[in-house]
Amino acid sequence: MAETVTGCMLIIGNEILSGRTQDTNLKHLAIELNELGVRMTEARVIPDIEEVIVAAVNECRAKFDYVFTTGGIGPTHDDITADCIAAAFGVRLIMDPTAEAIIRRREAPPDVMEARLRMARVPEGSTLIDNGTGGPPGFQMENVFVMAGVPMVMQAMVASLDAKRIRGGKPVRSRTIGAHLGEGQIAALLRGVQDNHPDVDVGSYPFYRDTGYGTNLVVRGTDEAELDAIVEELRSIIVDLGGNPTDGGL
Amino acid sequence: MAETVTGCMLIIGNEILSGRTQDTNLKHLAIELNELGVRMTEARVIPDIEEVIVAAVNECRAKFDYVFTTGGIGPTHDDITADCIAAAFGVRLIMDPTAEAIIRRREAPPDVMEARLRMARVPEGSTLIDNGTGGPPGFQMENVFVMAGVPMVMQAMVASLDAKRIRGGKPVRSRTIGAHLGEGQIAALLRGVQDNHPDVDVGSYPFYRDTGYGTNLVVRGTDEAELDAIVEELRSIIVDLGGNPTDGGL
Repeated sequence: MAETVTGCMLIIGNEILSGRTQDTNLKHLAIELNELGVRMTEARVIPDIEEVIVAAVNECRAKFDYVFTTGGIGPTHDDITADCIAAAFGVRLIMDPTAEAIIRRREAPPDVMEARLRMARVPEGSTLIDNGTGGPPGFQMENVFVMAGVPMVMQAMVASLDAKRIRGGKPVRSRTIGAHLGEGQIAALLRGVQDNHPDVDVGSYPFYRDTGYGTNLVVRGTDEAELDAIVEELRSIIVDLGGNPTDGGL
Repeated sequence: MAETVTGCMLIIGNEILSGRTQDTNLKHLAIELNELGVRMTEARVIPDIEEVIVAAVNECRAKFDYVFTTGGIGPTHDDITADCIAAAFGVRLIMDPTAEAIIRRREAPPDVMEARLRMARVPEGSTLIDNGTGGPPGFQMENVFVMAGVPMVMQAMVASLDAKRIRGGKPVRSRTIGAHLGEGQIAALLRGVQDNHPDVDVGSYPFYRDTGYGTNLVVRGTDEAELDAIVEELRSIIVDLGGNPTDGGL
């Protein structure tokens, strides 16, 4: 396979770990990164605790090509991500004048403004990540991209990432084919397909619904012609098993 | 604070990392674990790669009181979780007779049965986790609980976990109070509340909706009387800021 460019996501926030909030940023980021040629290779959900965040950032920025954090860049006491990134890189936090100007555009009483200006603090040496919602920006420090946790804001920041900032490989493409067959029925034959195509990831995803059970087969790889050929193999396998293959999955 | 019993979740599956599937198991498990007195302290989403799974299991079972895995225990070639747990503990995989009997209850052609019987393989020394859906069970190996990834099945397995298997601390309780105030308006005062109550976690969660923006404040801790007192403090703060406090959040 062509060189894989790897990405790791750090989801920072007690509210995800407590079960209070359902994370949806992982799915969004995974899909967008793939278009940039970056494969999401690991994701971690970690609490708002400085030592934990610093250790995770330092471990993951060494281990993966890119790291993307979400959460913890708001104005309150529990928003410590910028502090932690600065600590991880051993640099100072500074007030970014561009971020400060954006924040000051919206008037507020002095004490409120003081809290909001926390969001203009970035590690020295970082560059800003645009926030299309008009709020404070995120920032990039070397291979670490620091973004908001609120999905609308996070998505606006992700939308500003492009090939100038992220050097990806070939995007991964996928094909799905489904049938009303049990996963166990397909299992033995699927292993053969996987073994013949080591560069491709063949996954099987069983489902159980009111309308019956079945399995979707998902083939992922960077070579579209190979994916098409594998789908034809899977189609024959499904037909041989007495199933009715459905392109795009069920 | 009373001793905190920690749990780590390992979500095993390429389909989550690719963005194809939205994980919902974390939220469910976090809430259920809390009732057992276990605090979800970290979660990781990792791919279906043996070295990665083995390393994560060994790191996390040493670091946290309990580890819970989801995914990778079906009948197909990419279902390698049981193999990885056995490798992590340095024990053999054996056929569990109870699991085998459950699987054989449902008739199938020999090749299908062979694939399904993969799901009866457990690491030597493990005990089964009941699966109320009637399908194959999960298993527990020391402090590691191995469960299905399909939410319906995973939830059935979680439902069978109880105080006999999991020694938890006091469950964490929470109170929420919301107002149509910006997070920045509340920020400075919130830090004071947090500083006065180090055993309690005070979080602020801004929202932006068609009906306007606002912030929910969530107080979490094990002492219900302390939580109630903090909510009264927050109520006064909101009123002083000109807001209209809403119990339970907005």
